[in-house]
Amino acid sequence: MTIPAPLNGVVPPVCTPLTPDSEVDTASLVALVDHLLEAGVDGLFVLGSTSEVAFLPDAHRRLVVETVTRHVAGQVPVLAGVIDTATLRVVRHAETALAAGADALVATAPFYTRTHPAEIAEHFRLIARRTGAPLFAYDLPVSVHSKLGAELVLELAAEGVLAGLKDSSGDEGGFRSVVLGARSRADVDGFSVLTGSELTVDSALAMGAAGVVPGLGNVDPAGYVRLHRLCVAGEWALARAEQERLCGLFGMVGVGDPARMGRSSSALGAFKAALYLRGVIACPLTAAPQLPLSASEVAAVGKYLAAAGLL
Amino acid sequence: MTIPAPLNGVVPPVCTPLTPDSEVDTASLVALVDHLLEAGVDGLFVLGSTSEVAFLPDAHRRLVVETVTRHVAGQVPVLAGVIDTATLRVVRHAETALAAGADALVATAPFYTRTHPAEIAEHFRLIARRTGAPLFAYDLPVSVHSKLGAELVLELAAEGVLAGLKDSSGDEGGFRSVVLGARSRADVDGFSVLTGSELTVDSALAMGAAGVVPGLGNVDPAGYVRLHRLCVAGEWALARAEQERLCGLFGMVGVGDPARMGRSSSALGAFKAALYLRGVIACPLTAAPQLPLSASEVAAVGKYLAAAGLL
Amino acid sequence: MTIPAPLNGVVPPVCTPLTPDSEVDTASLVALVDHLLEAGVDGLFVLGSTSEVAFLPDAHRRLVVETVTRHVAGQVPVLAGVIDTATLRVVRHAETALAAGADALVATAPFYTRTHPAEIAEHFRLIARRTGAPLFAYDLPVSVHSKLGAELVLELAAEGVLAGLKDSSGDEGGFRSVVLGARSRADVDGFSVLTGSELTVDSALAMGAAGVVPGLGNVDPAGYVRLHRLCVAGEWALARAEQERLCGLFGMVGVGDPARMGRSSSALGAFKAALYLRGVIACPLTAAPQLPLSASEVAAVGKYLAAAGLL
Amino acid sequence: MTIPAPLNGVVPPVCTPLTPDSEVDTASLVALVDHLLEAGVDGLFVLGSTSEVAFLPDAHRRLVVETVTRHVAGQVPVLAGVIDTATLRVVRHAETALAAGADALVATAPFYTRTHPAEIAEHFRLIARRTGAPLFAYDLPVSVHSKLGAELVLELAAEGVLAGLKDSSGDEGGFRSVVLGARSRADVDGFSVLTGSELTVDSALAMGAAGVVPGLGNVDPAGYVRLHRLCVAGEWALARAEQERLCGLFGMVGVGDPARMGRSSSALGAFKAALYLRGVIACPLTAAPQLPLSASEVAAVGKYLAAAGLL
Repeated sequence: MTIPAPLNGVVPPVCTPLTPDSEVDTASLVALVDHLLEAGVDGLFVLGSTSEVAFLPDAHRRLVVETVTRHVAGQVPVLAGVIDTATLRVVRHAETALAAGADALVATAPFYTRTHPAEIAEHFRLIARRTGAPLFAYDLPVSVHSKLGAELVLELAAEGVLAGLKDSSGDEGGFRSVVLGARSRADVDGFSVLTGSELTVDSALAMGAAGVVPGLGNVDPAGYVRLHRLCVAGEWALARAEQERLCGLFGMVGVGDPARMGRSSSALGAFKAALYLRGVIACPLTAAPQLPLSASEVAAVGKYLAAAGLL
Repeated sequence: MTIPAPLNGVVPPVCTPLTPDSEVDTASLVALVDHLLEAGVDGLFVLGSTSEVAFLPDAHRRLVVETVTRHVAGQVPVLAGVIDTATLRVVRHAETALAAGADALVATAPFYTRTHPAEIAEHFRLIARRTGAPLFAYDLPVSVHSKLGAELVLELAAEGVLAGLKDSSGDEGGFRSVVLGARSRADVDGFSVLTGSELTVDSALAMGAAGVVPGLGNVDPAGYVRLHRLCVAGEWALARAEQERLCGLFGMVGVGDPARMGRSSSALGAFKAALYLRGVIACPLTAAPQLPLSASEVAAVGKYLAAAGLL
Repeated sequence: MTIPAPLNGVVPPVCTPLTPDSEVDTASLVALVDHLLEAGVDGLFVLGSTSEVAFLPDAHRRLVVETVTRHVAGQVPVLAGVIDTATLRVVRHAETALAAGADALVATAPFYTRTHPAEIAEHFRLIARRTGAPLFAYDLPVSVHSKLGAELVLELAAEGVLAGLKDSSGDEGGFRSVVLGARSRADVDGFSVLTGSELTVDSALAMGAAGVVPGLGNVDPAGYVRLHRLCVAGEWALARAEQERLCGLFGMVGVGDPARMGRSSSALGAFKAALYLRGVIACPLTAAPQLPLSASEVAAVGKYLAAAGLL
Repeated sequence: MTIPAPLNGVVPPVCTPLTPDSEVDTASLVALVDHLLEAGVDGLFVLGSTSEVAFLPDAHRRLVVETVTRHVAGQVPVLAGVIDTATLRVVRHAETALAAGADALVATAPFYTRTHPAEIAEHFRLIARRTGAPLFAYDLPVSVHSKLGAELVLELAAEGVLAGLKDSSGDEGGFRSVVLGARSRADVDGFSVLTGSELTVDSALAMGAAGVVPGLGNVDPAGYVRLHRLCVAGEWALARAEQERLCGLFGMVGVGDPARMGRSSSALGAFKAALYLRGVIACPLTAAPQLPLSASEVAAVGKYLAAAGLL
């Protein structure tokens, strides 16, 4: 399908349920997609950081795209992450994802290597030219250790290289610069500025962002859909209350003991534990070398769900 | 072949020559391997950072291992980098590399994700267990943004998980801690501590390191072989003079204008330009999105070669 | 004077005008204070980063506090930065600032040293205990390379150590956690959460922040006062328009050529050039080793002022 | 006194003993200086990082310089750290230190602010011009978050701005570039390249460094003097054995529990505990907000001393 320009609304990054032996649990993945679609989301982003893309072998990645696109069958656009270290590797993922039915691609700056902004621009230009598909830049300095500058993003938007930005930089000032630039520049049109923040969706939408890509949207998609609708309706006080409820729920990402495990294990482990506790997926396992939450940490996730009215 | 324990000597990380359309130039790769073997190197490390591993698609990677192992035919051990973001992806590369004939594996800590030391240990344990092959840890914080602590490395050595360390951290104090620990701990035996530095080989060998993995060894393998032999012979004054000549030659990594390109483009571009100027490879191209050296930058590489007596 | 709890509204960090020989230009400083007070600001923050505190010797610092407190004479509270590397040095600055008439203190986490969160907490506790004055934590990871966690800030608020937070971390999610925690915790009362962002004031106030400490408020204090009043009145559409005008004006911080100078030279140079062009201060000099803007860079500042209707 | 050019040998950064109420313990400081002089050190560096300079108020700093220079009375040169955030503040410290009898100054790049290399160069030029004293650059990126490039250091050496470099960057490749450049450039003469590493003194001297500034030299000055003499005599095998003994002793810096305290508390706490256990100083207190070692951590320091034959 042709994706809307700009793409608006709630586009959750879809968790990748695994079987106990670390294969893709396609039945749970389909159940999760239904859980999201029934809540009224506007699109799906598979193979993002929340999807554990960096942990998944290529065959897992392809199976995820195929499973989701076949099940969604055009009801909403499906964006696929093509996360890898440099251009030629990303292009291979892009070809696979498009063959598997993805409607658009999401790529970060190169990582592992030390890259100049001119090389980052070249990277996105080459991906766009070789695939011809709508391409979203994924700004995630915590993972790739480069920040995409607003000028770079807007220039690539004007060139037609980028269809949108998924901003997970946490830099709301830079985010606003892109929103304002995309609106004011005559040579930029239909560009989607999406926030990856779970905590400042009302702010981002008030600034003029097109949409939101919240990892926590796996756990409570209806909450984010409600929040988005309230913002679109200009019901800012109600939106703020809904956002604050979701901020409380987001506390679950910190249940894992930082003396024992990393941030991925804790946050992605909590999302999957919540989906398991809510009955959406069959197994809360995260991919190696992430470590599992303890029983008491899983119980803490349950308390967050209960407090937010989700159990 | 079974690799020596410890692996000693000069083990250059082999550049990956590319054709003008970015395919692996296997004829040039074979010529480069001959250039290295004729100089008397003790092993080869394919698919390291100097090999542009992060830029190469899987098919390129496999072809590199196959080409080199077939040509080397057991004359020296061939170590293969299995560089990727997390465990399951690394294991896939490892299976491919071993099937293609690699004698040992070289893996970094996970990257892109935020990982706890306990997870890094689990990562190496799983790779070792699932492959059964000798495994070298590759300490490269500039790329993966985690430093491997000496205690962690020594513990994994004692467990039999790691066969060696390739240290490119630039932290000579930490490096020495591993060297001393590997010597003094009764539960560690035959562990190879290799430095990735081009500039402090004499120091590292004087400390007791087993060997050296110098990127610049592509350009002047005979120099590094000579340097290693002088160190082994305890000819420290002559070793220092040879090392200082190589330090001068290493200046070539800075020929690329930092206002225009990143460090990879400059350093790897210089190595490949030098190999091209010396007649070893057919084309100096580096992989996208790296940018090419200008004609005057290539000429500067030539001056470094001339000053070191290599043209 | 006793400062309000919480302190609300617009509290600009006051630039420090210098004479051509780098002394404090007290006449210009008084003129700048009048410029701010006439616009209706709710407090003044002297000796913050925008004040070039890190560049100013102790005698300059004392003179700034004395000059401003004497001139303000209790019309609004005056907060003084006590920025230094560790506790005993900060306490000395605090004693001087309080003797010179400051109403409250603003301190960062220790820097230069490598400090544990328990030591950061101890740092703030000791400052509060030894001075007895209201103490604001200044969260500025770009300068001090530690981030103040929301839990740490709220715990120190509950203990009565901290009267408020000036957040210049750029992390709006963490900021919101402090705002929500300060509101929901029964043991925290009258705690001022202030944003240091120039670009997301409407967002921060919508979240429930008490006030704003915008460096750009030197240049256009009336704009920030207007923006604050619109937010308090719930006029979000008008607030957003005013905020966007200020976002445009903020572009001036990038006039300095990054190939030639650092970010401080560019941003603080632009603020001082703007104050000079608006006739508020006599000399746009920034302190050594910052480099001056070129004539064309100053002209660019003038264009930003003109575009915002300030010339 | 006029300091030698270059300054050679062992120049320990002198710990600053404190009384139980955090004043300078001048009697212990004098005893520590005697302990160092009796071991045969070639100079003293007061007010470095190991001296807790970042924790000490100005009056403490002045008293340290006065106490040491008066007691040393010209037997060896006394270098004084003038550590502060930017130029004008550093110049004030320099004036005080020179008036108190220091023979040379040691300054870092600016910190807290974000500074361009051109501004760093300007910083050192202004300090040199305004004081006229021999100036050593202190390369300490872990504290100031800028690395001094070899080219910058050599250019300032050629200009006569810098008399030497104290390198605590841990980057032995960059260190060697300065050593080689200082030797090969005709416009650089008498430049002192000193390593701040405790663990690679033999390597640094073998490369051609002039001397060493080891924090652990407080605890075992005789060991470092012996090590230096062995290196000068070309007795590399004996030097290596002595260096390895000191590497073992250096393990004491890790006695403090990292879950409970920062690196300064642990390392500086260990040095002071060792000096206390050896009977050199009266009280092992470190300055706030550093936390004290526990009794078992102090006992661990004692074991390191015993193992090195120092108790």
